[in-house]
Amino acid sequence: MNRRKKISVIGAGFTGATTAFLLAAKELGDVVLVDIPQMEDPTKGKALDMLEAGPVMGFDANITGTSSYEDTADSDVVVITAGIARKPGMSRDDLVATNEKIMRNVAKEIVRYSPECTIIVLTNPVDAMTYAVFTESGLPKHRVIGQSGVLDTARFRTFVAQELNLSVKDVTGFVLGGHGDDMVPLVRYSYAGGIPLEKLMPKERLDAIVERTRKGGGEIVNLLGNGSAYYAPAASLVEMTEAIIKDQRRVIPAIAYLEGEYGFDGIYLGVPAVLGKNGLEQIIELELTEDEKAALEKSADSVRNVMKVLSN
Amino acid sequence: MNRRKKISVIGAGFTGATTAFLLAAKELGDVVLVDIPQMEDPTKGKALDMLEAGPVMGFDANITGTSSYEDTADSDVVVITAGIARKPGMSRDDLVATNEKIMRNVAKEIVRYSPECTIIVLTNPVDAMTYAVFTESGLPKHRVIGQSGVLDTARFRTFVAQELNLSVKDVTGFVLGGHGDDMVPLVRYSYAGGIPLEKLMPKERLDAIVERTRKGGGEIVNLLGNGSAYYAPAASLVEMTEAIIKDQRRVIPAIAYLEGEYGFDGIYLGVPAVLGKNGLEQIIELELTEDEKAALEKSADSVRNVMKVLSN
Amino acid sequence: MNRRKKISVIGAGFTGATTAFLLAAKELGDVVLVDIPQMEDPTKGKALDMLEAGPVMGFDANITGTSSYEDTADSDVVVITAGIARKPGMSRDDLVATNEKIMRNVAKEIVRYSPECTIIVLTNPVDAMTYAVFTESGLPKHRVIGQSGVLDTARFRTFVAQELNLSVKDVTGFVLGGHGDDMVPLVRYSYAGGIPLEKLMPKERLDAIVERTRKGGGEIVNLLGNGSAYYAPAASLVEMTEAIIKDQRRVIPAIAYLEGEYGFDGIYLGVPAVLGKNGLEQIIELELTEDEKAALEKSADSVRNVMKVLSN
Amino acid sequence: MNRRKKISVIGAGFTGATTAFLLAAKELGDVVLVDIPQMEDPTKGKALDMLEAGPVMGFDANITGTSSYEDTADSDVVVITAGIARKPGMSRDDLVATNEKIMRNVAKEIVRYSPECTIIVLTNPVDAMTYAVFTESGLPKHRVIGQSGVLDTARFRTFVAQELNLSVKDVTGFVLGGHGDDMVPLVRYSYAGGIPLEKLMPKERLDAIVERTRKGGGEIVNLLGNGSAYYAPAASLVEMTEAIIKDQRRVIPAIAYLEGEYGFDGIYLGVPAVLGKNGLEQIIELELTEDEKAALEKSADSVRNVMKVLSN
Repeated sequence: MNRRKKISVIGAGFTGATTAFLLAAKELGDVVLVDIPQMEDPTKGKALDMLEAGPVMGFDANITGTSSYEDTADSDVVVITAGIARKPGMSRDDLVATNEKIMRNVAKEIVRYSPECTIIVLTNPVDAMTYAVFTESGLPKHRVIGQSGVLDTARFRTFVAQELNLSVKDVTGFVLGGHGDDMVPLVRYSYAGGIPLEKLMPKERLDAIVERTRKGGGEIVNLLGNGSAYYAPAASLVEMTEAIIKDQRRVIPAIAYLEGEYGFDGIYLGVPAVLGKNGLEQIIELELTEDEKAALEKSADSVRNVMKVLSN
Repeated sequence: MNRRKKISVIGAGFTGATTAFLLAAKELGDVVLVDIPQMEDPTKGKALDMLEAGPVMGFDANITGTSSYEDTADSDVVVITAGIARKPGMSRDDLVATNEKIMRNVAKEIVRYSPECTIIVLTNPVDAMTYAVFTESGLPKHRVIGQSGVLDTARFRTFVAQELNLSVKDVTGFVLGGHGDDMVPLVRYSYAGGIPLEKLMPKERLDAIVERTRKGGGEIVNLLGNGSAYYAPAASLVEMTEAIIKDQRRVIPAIAYLEGEYGFDGIYLGVPAVLGKNGLEQIIELELTEDEKAALEKSADSVRNVMKVLSN
Repeated sequence: MNRRKKISVIGAGFTGATTAFLLAAKELGDVVLVDIPQMEDPTKGKALDMLEAGPVMGFDANITGTSSYEDTADSDVVVITAGIARKPGMSRDDLVATNEKIMRNVAKEIVRYSPECTIIVLTNPVDAMTYAVFTESGLPKHRVIGQSGVLDTARFRTFVAQELNLSVKDVTGFVLGGHGDDMVPLVRYSYAGGIPLEKLMPKERLDAIVERTRKGGGEIVNLLGNGSAYYAPAASLVEMTEAIIKDQRRVIPAIAYLEGEYGFDGIYLGVPAVLGKNGLEQIIELELTEDEKAALEKSADSVRNVMKVLSN
Repeated sequence: MNRRKKISVIGAGFTGATTAFLLAAKELGDVVLVDIPQMEDPTKGKALDMLEAGPVMGFDANITGTSSYEDTADSDVVVITAGIARKPGMSRDDLVATNEKIMRNVAKEIVRYSPECTIIVLTNPVDAMTYAVFTESGLPKHRVIGQSGVLDTARFRTFVAQELNLSVKDVTGFVLGGHGDDMVPLVRYSYAGGIPLEKLMPKERLDAIVERTRKGGGEIVNLLGNGSAYYAPAASLVEMTEAIIKDQRRVIPAIAYLEGEYGFDGIYLGVPAVLGKNGLEQIIELELTEDEKAALEKSADSVRNVMKVLSN
């Protein structure tokens, strides 16, 4: 009965690999890193390299690289980072179509071997991809969620902490809605040491930080030249996974399936949620201002536009 | 007087970047990640991505990406991961010549801004490269060391822990001499739970594990297809850095400049050492068997052969 | 230059000892635990017992038990937990007089050996005792602070997390003014997951929690029957110490010397502050409602009443 | 299925309370602290005080103080620290009789509510008390173990690290047999950085350290004047518990029921063991020298002498 937890990470690219590494380093459970058969050897290589860090870092966790979903059997949590990034010249619809296919295939394989797991999706466009995994997996809605708000607020908090020269531990942020451009920041719920940020810096500075956060993914892409962020995204996935694995009842933004909440129905959207052993255990509803409502509606429109492209 | 520690990592490739990330995550100090001017933007991008993981992982550390050594001023420890890997068709001497040039340039810049730092070298061929950094930097010998034994023993410990199905926390290994093929394993000083491994598994299995350890770097290279290990190497650099930063007086294998110890003079070679606030504070000398002496002599020959190629 | 940090804890009772233990366990530096000469042996015994936990818990820190202030020389931070608790039948003025004498003696000894340290006072009545240490030590005001708000908010957060069944990590609280009964809670600056608590529970429940927090120290005293809380107080002292030792620029409530802030002058009072390498680096001023102002004024009156009893 | 682990600690004295606190601080699971009905309030007080440290230290764990075993239901691990200490004038047989009665009562209650738990006994005389719990509980032998060797080696390692001025992380010790005076140290299996201690210090110093370790409990008792060690004992219990809860397969000395191992039968004795999800998963047998055999036989005689006093 007292078995170790098990977490599978689908997609062994930079984000997937970093996520696997951090999960193992925290001894949250045994980790299975999965990629396609053509990438089996590199995936095994990464897993072995991570495993060899164990004695030095002092963690006990099996880390397995594989292309076989059989190895993921009985996972408690499965994180999906698989999928392609948008390449120059690729239409958004092509991206959606390709990643949807990947999501459906991955979802099918996951539930085949772990029918009681919770799935966390990172693949972009994340709201629609989470929806695709949800419908394909047949899992209840509280067992399929997506990540975007943890990362968005992490960036926001970083910029605020720099601006005010304060510990990141004491700065919080709050977002609703979609990722990046579609993000609906609630600065009135964002604080340093509990003090609303609006009281700590001029509106222009705060606006500039919100704008920088919106473009936060692009800022990294532009700097890297070739590739996109993976440290902060991986850390975000680890925080969500830990909340579930340890049944922490954390209050964390998550992309959740709405059925009436915030006035939306049948759509995945970023909302404040409670994460615990059952996955998403609660959606927290807030009264919004008219402006916030409008922004959230706009964010939902974006998601709906992508959902239209989905095959199903 | 109570300032934060500062650590610079030269070379923002996978190993350098992962090292920087783990140093920051442990709040060992502020971290400066340095690469050449052509790579300044990607280096900044990696540093920013890491920084944005801080609020989620709960660490306070400045992480700066730069191509200017001025930013490394007053570092307590500097880790060198810069240099090229041997490409197909490249002679060993070409590799040595190229990396030596890089080491000399890097060393000069480091001491210009941090005349009292301790330098840890990872670049291959590591014994000779550490020597090049030592001569160029003008730092005392206890302030210039190299890494190879922490990684070699980490691999050895991983394989033993798997074989015996035991916690990596309780398995230790012990090596002298050079890296990989030149490694001189002292299995009689390697244990599980304090029990010599020779009593816990048949000689053939132990021999096989030693052999696998020797080829441990190549095993990862072969699996990855394109690139080499970086998780375990980074973890190894972090352990050495932490021992120095926190003045832990850890007993750790290090590549040290020998002046009489083990019968060698004027050569860098892997030996058990005590790492603390002064860098390498002590070399621990052991009586060796004739076989071990011969193996260490052979390892030293390899190092000398590379040193002959050095310009200086 | 790269020496280990050093922290001294004055008073080896339960709170002092637990503080010393947690500081060492976090490897924040070497720890010196000081008590009066009559208690030297028990103090040494506690320190040795803690030290013997080091190999198992994996921390490297010297822990010294002593009655000689010489051993505290060059401390970065000194925590004062010394003093007596109020006994049945003892007047408040007698308590103040006794503890003031202790504070003055302790302060003199501390600065004699650590003229550049930061002092954190826990001894009750804490606002006045911090003042006594300040005047006696001759240290600048940013180097002498007191603890009360970290503990008060810790209790508040615990009760809220229980009430809402949420992670303590996501619940924050905010207080001004004195300790316990004199505490001025700012519930409008208290949140769960960034959401104001007022939106998450009925006013009666929140009021009940505030009231329970006020009496939080007494609740433990009543349960224990003999003695008072020490786990949470020690954790609070460790958080403040860590912020200073690691120069984290944490936003933490601290008892600070006011010279004009919040309209007070020449008095120690609990306010939101930024703690970093210089001790208290900044006081954060907030606009208060009339009610809050009145409550803070009342809290200040309490402090002034105690200060009148001080010899100086 | 993904529920939090649960650990109960019987006996809320200093060792029990400190154990509970460290278990919670490590987020190893929810913790139930149990003492007799007369001590219910203080037990609740300690538990509440610990709980209130959670928000500051950042741990999520329920900590319950109780006198009702019902609250321990479905524990994964139960740690027994209950029992009296030998008072001046009390015969050893009286101590045994009293603590045996306590053990039998506690064991009955534990298995009533947690029929599948693993029990770790600390109460002295620990070998005999573990036997009493074993026979009374009806649990299989791998589910009932005792602690002594982790603490003995912790003390040994501390003294060696001090003597050699090295990190405790790199010093190991090894004991067989009973606790304290009955301890059988295997110095040939004790190392610093993997190097046998015999090569690192003169025999007299090593002998003196062994002798000091034997008397290690008494050294603390003498210093404290009133009471005995609890920090290092608690840390030792936490390490054993963690190995089981996280299924780490640690190689740790444990008091185990021998049926043929080391030539003993039907007796609990300290031996190197593998601890994992099933409790004691393996006893590691070593060849002993004649001297070691004789010392172990003497140690077993001590245990048998105490066992004779047992009622059953």
